[in-house]
Amino acid sequence: MKIEYRNLRVALLGAGSVGSQVARLLLEQGDELASRVGAGLELVGVAVRDVDAPRDFDIPRHLLTTDAHTLIRSADIVIELMGGLEPAREYIHLAIASGADVVTGNKALLATYGPELFAAADQVGAQLYYEAAAGGAIPIIRPLRDSLAGDRVVRVMGIVNGTTNFILDRMDVEGDSFENALAIATDLGYAEADPTADVEGFDAAQKAAILASLAFHTAVPVESVHREGMTTVTAAQVDAAQKAGYVVKLLAICERLTDAETGVEGVVARVHPALISRRHPLAAVHDAKNAVFVQAEAAGDLMFYGAGAGGVETASAVLGDLVSAARRHVAGGPGVGESTHANLAVLGIGAVTTRYQLTLVVTDKPGVLAQIAGLFSEHGVSVEAVQQTVATAPIAADGSRSVDEPLTATLVIVTHEATDAALSATVAAVSANDAVVRVESVLRVEGDTP
Amino acid sequence: MKIEYRNLRVALLGAGSVGSQVARLLLEQGDELASRVGAGLELVGVAVRDVDAPRDFDIPRHLLTTDAHTLIRSADIVIELMGGLEPAREYIHLAIASGADVVTGNKALLATYGPELFAAADQVGAQLYYEAAAGGAIPIIRPLRDSLAGDRVVRVMGIVNGTTNFILDRMDVEGDSFENALAIATDLGYAEADPTADVEGFDAAQKAAILASLAFHTAVPVESVHREGMTTVTAAQVDAAQKAGYVVKLLAICERLTDAETGVEGVVARVHPALISRRHPLAAVHDAKNAVFVQAEAAGDLMFYGAGAGGVETASAVLGDLVSAARRHVAGGPGVGESTHANLAVLGIGAVTTRYQLTLVVTDKPGVLAQIAGLFSEHGVSVEAVQQTVATAPIAADGSRSVDEPLTATLVIVTHEATDAALSATVAAVSANDAVVRVESVLRVEGDTP
Repeated sequence: MKIEYRNLRVALLGAGSVGSQVARLLLEQGDELASRVGAGLELVGVAVRDVDAPRDFDIPRHLLTTDAHTLIRSADIVIELMGGLEPAREYIHLAIASGADVVTGNKALLATYGPELFAAADQVGAQLYYEAAAGGAIPIIRPLRDSLAGDRVVRVMGIVNGTTNFILDRMDVEGDSFENALAIATDLGYAEADPTADVEGFDAAQKAAILASLAFHTAVPVESVHREGMTTVTAAQVDAAQKAGYVVKLLAICERLTDAETGVEGVVARVHPALISRRHPLAAVHDAKNAVFVQAEAAGDLMFYGAGAGGVETASAVLGDLVSAARRHVAGGPGVGESTHANLAVLGIGAVTTRYQLTLVVTDKPGVLAQIAGLFSEHGVSVEAVQQTVATAPIAADGSRSVDEPLTATLVIVTHEATDAALSATVAAVSANDAVVRVESVLRVEGDTP
Repeated sequence: MKIEYRNLRVALLGAGSVGSQVARLLLEQGDELASRVGAGLELVGVAVRDVDAPRDFDIPRHLLTTDAHTLIRSADIVIELMGGLEPAREYIHLAIASGADVVTGNKALLATYGPELFAAADQVGAQLYYEAAAGGAIPIIRPLRDSLAGDRVVRVMGIVNGTTNFILDRMDVEGDSFENALAIATDLGYAEADPTADVEGFDAAQKAAILASLAFHTAVPVESVHREGMTTVTAAQVDAAQKAGYVVKLLAICERLTDAETGVEGVVARVHPALISRRHPLAAVHDAKNAVFVQAEAAGDLMFYGAGAGGVETASAVLGDLVSAARRHVAGGPGVGESTHANLAVLGIGAVTTRYQLTLVVTDKPGVLAQIAGLFSEHGVSVEAVQQTVATAPIAADGSRSVDEPLTATLVIVTHEATDAALSATVAAVSANDAVVRVESVLRVEGDTP
């Protein structure tokens, strides 16, 4: 006996790599989803720019339309997978205004216009679901919003960009240079022709804004996220990190802290390359995989791991949201919308304290280490460990060692926690010192000591 | 201005390590929870056996009672953290009958009487929340029920017992014997005085039953879970696994598969020690940490990592459920109850195919490998790889090598996927072969090849 359900009308906007997989799964597994929802899910149309464009899945011709407005007005639930800011923003407003619930995977849109869209939805009692925007296929929204609703999140550290993790993993495992690893990522389709959004951390910064908002019940705009890319990470740095028991990862870090100077409690979000211990669970995130590591007061350390991108993988998150939206249509109740009741201050990178690893090339004469250590202590930065390599004279082109040039040594210094400001002042003072040939690199160290 | 909320009355049953932390967090952070719920949460009483017993947190005397019945009847939400089957089962029935929603962390109860309790709740529209029962602090219920509601779970592989993971991690990292590692786990409070429930896999089997039910929308009773403990794992096995690129873990595996003989599609749950590749994300789960690795058709590989036990950690999961239950009281809507609509057959271990690693000591003469390989092929088990160590003569007590005894060699054979039945028949035939001195060990190999 086939059960007859009331049908919910689903409109899909966009049929790219994620959208076409959502259409396929909806058409192929609609009956199974219906039994989970208690209502039928009918895909009533797919709005695209060009109905004749080739797609990963052959969507039946009669479902395709270029008239998004009419489609949106006819739907109970609208799934927006077009990407970009406009017309996605306009369409979502239209959907909300016509009484539909919305599912979106558009992180750029949410990181930019999130508060405006959530407010619009709130006003009419509509819901905006966005699991696919925060971490691809990784279930992170419901754990943060519901499972941890009785706890206090302290810090979120995420590997939230697959392209850069693939590159850094290649550099770590295969010893590749950044350029080689990027070329391989491009060949394999992990990196786009213009990789700027990934390697400069723009994509990660958008996700950091969404995760910070979610974890701390506070609207965190993408412009407030401190962002450094990972194009400056060298094979030598990765190799040195490995020898010291670390791995270099591009991390999105969101934390709740008190600014030591002003006493203001607030939230800071930042994206930059950092060293983490090889024993840390994030160190085991290889290839293009993503993971979000969460520290909460009561629950302790948690981690959520999975595919951060990919058409069919991300479609799983979209369909999970669709089922939630549909269940709410059937049974009522709260959705997974924004929550900003904590409304904490959003602080700048200056409020952050973390550990640093500095690599310095110095002239090898007595007293240099004491001099350098003095500079650190003058600026209030406490040294945790120093490693000095065997001194060598510069090697000339013919392979001989110059006896006129002074011998040099390499100092690798790991500090205790210090503010960005204190560290910057220390680096300036160290650079100006006569005994210092050059500052080879400065990297933040996150997570526990190996 | 203090916002006045309607108060929801919360009753707590049990004040052990988890219960006393739940009481503490509720009393200390009640206002913060109220702002997340939109209603006050008032702890109206804590039912205990002995009001004078010492506890981790000093619960105000006036809240303690030995009269659970009266307390339960007065509550909107009942939190059951007593453990054991009775009277926990009776109390939950009473709570449901008096119209309360229930939060429980009692895995033994759910694995044994789950269907009965869910049916009772269903009948009156009450909800039964159980995040803490499935994986301690790890958020796994909502990801499986909601985030993956639009996907099809294929397999769940979990490290769901902290005690045994601590022991196996010690054996792997420090080279300890099982006995030494167990002694250390006992000293550190990770293992109980009687470790049977942990090391024989009973605890893991209860969680496997709950995870399988959840992942496959099918009631899986704990009696149907195939269970093997890990007391037989030796230091030599762990060492050999390490050399071959594997690590030994006690895994709870739940999968959806088709029985090759009968053609019946169903679910199998099993708990046993197994080899997994060191590159597998589960291999990076150290100490007493837990993790649940989920494979879904669309989402691909996901993993959820965190503390599987501990008073305050588990309290986080309980409070997350409490907030969900409270939100439902305020806003209505669906809860996180059982879902058994798929109602698949529950199959035995015989239906499972997996890979195996066999270690055999054989007499070293020409043709033995061919003979052994013949036995595998006769029983339909295909060999993936064979490694043969240098042959050595048995060493006598005085350190001399006997020249009368035949030389022996050790064969380590990894098979392709085979059924339990085919493998058992092969092992019997191999054991009976004259050239085989002994079968040193047989271990399943799970996950991908290193």
